[in-house]
Amino acid sequence: MKSYREELWFETKTRRAYLNITAQVDAAVQKSGVREGMVLVNAMHITASVYINDDEAGLLHDYETVLERLAPQDATYRHNDTGEDNGDAHIKRQLMGREVVVAITDGKLDFGPWEQIFYGEFDGRRRKRVLVKVIGE
Amino acid sequence: MKSYREELWFETKTRRAYLNITAQVDAAVQKSGVREGMVLVNAMHITASVYINDDEAGLLHDYETVLERLAPQDATYRHNDTGEDNGDAHIKRQLMGREVVVAITDGKLDFGPWEQIFYGEFDGRRRKRVLVKVIGE
Amino acid sequence: MKSYREELWFETKTRRAYLNITAQVDAAVQKSGVREGMVLVNAMHITASVYINDDEAGLLHDYETVLERLAPQDATYRHNDTGEDNGDAHIKRQLMGREVVVAITDGKLDFGPWEQIFYGEFDGRRRKRVLVKVIGE
Repeated sequence: MKSYREELWFETKTRRAYLNITAQVDAAVQKSGVREGMVLVNAMHITASVYINDDEAGLLHDYETVLERLAPQDATYRHNDTGEDNGDAHIKRQLMGREVVVAITDGKLDFGPWEQIFYGEFDGRRRKRVLVKVIGE
Repeated sequence: MKSYREELWFETKTRRAYLNITAQVDAAVQKSGVREGMVLVNAMHITASVYINDDEAGLLHDYETVLERLAPQDATYRHNDTGEDNGDAHIKRQLMGREVVVAITDGKLDFGPWEQIFYGEFDGRRRKRVLVKVIGE
Repeated sequence: MKSYREELWFETKTRRAYLNITAQVDAAVQKSGVREGMVLVNAMHITASVYINDDEAGLLHDYETVLERLAPQDATYRHNDTGEDNGDAHIKRQLMGREVVVAITDGKLDFGPWEQIFYGEFDGRRRKRVLVKVIGE
């Protein structure tokens, strides 16, 4: 069994951002040399997500609208009594998910026609990481 | 390490549908010959989900109600400015999740008493796929 | 390839509870002897979650508030026509997720600074299980 590990670092200029990281994950899979296996891609921070969906600007705007409706930034969060102001970001991350697992087949990400891997940032403007872990043969 | 890959194809008659696909995934695991490992089951389309929950008709109705409340089909979505009408389906899929990973133990899906794997379709009436990828020994 | 399986059992005193199970999962990874691989941690019941987020009391309270807003315990659920009273718990579990997959690197859970694994119980006061499955080398 082969394994490979890589960290991707991000620092978004805005509090929230949605970054297509498919090319970086694909490059890590190539470096791993794994032809058949799985790759785990997860946020290493608890106010960010890794998820798979369409790379379409309107949709990213819709996520923003829905997440603000379900967990508004300016609502009251007990978590913010600690001095933090990111209670909403913890909730948004939970709704969007922490991680994806993608099959590797013939050395490639085994994707449907529109699948793209995104880093969803909900409390940005500082350096944060994503873990890419590949296992297989 | 062994690996095995199979696609399951679906074409639902309704826009939304919830299909129990446990038997198909179990059959794929049998074909893989894997006795100890993991199986990844994911929607290959971005307006559909694979998730695990109860196979109970009332609950499927409740999902329908909750998802329509959280992301109504007839709400305004920027994504629909592209000419699509499935903005809601992208959101619903996100809330229900893309994938499940299930342990394989002694050659079987290692499940609790009520766990069943479902394909959740949120923009159906066309051919769409689920990927089953098995790795292990 | 090595594999290892362990069940963790819980019986919460309250209907809903959020338990930090990181130490138990870490102990299972140690027992597995796996140095490079992945660990799957999933609820074996369909009214409970395994998720990763911060171990901060205010945040746990916020989850409670948000989940009760999105899927109130006292709302009407068709599922409850079966005689059950846990329709809300099926929905809450779905929003919080069933499982996490965590990378194992150098024999340890490969975590960011604040990541902690939680068992989220939404219909407790009875014995329920979490599955820990480790694969790797």
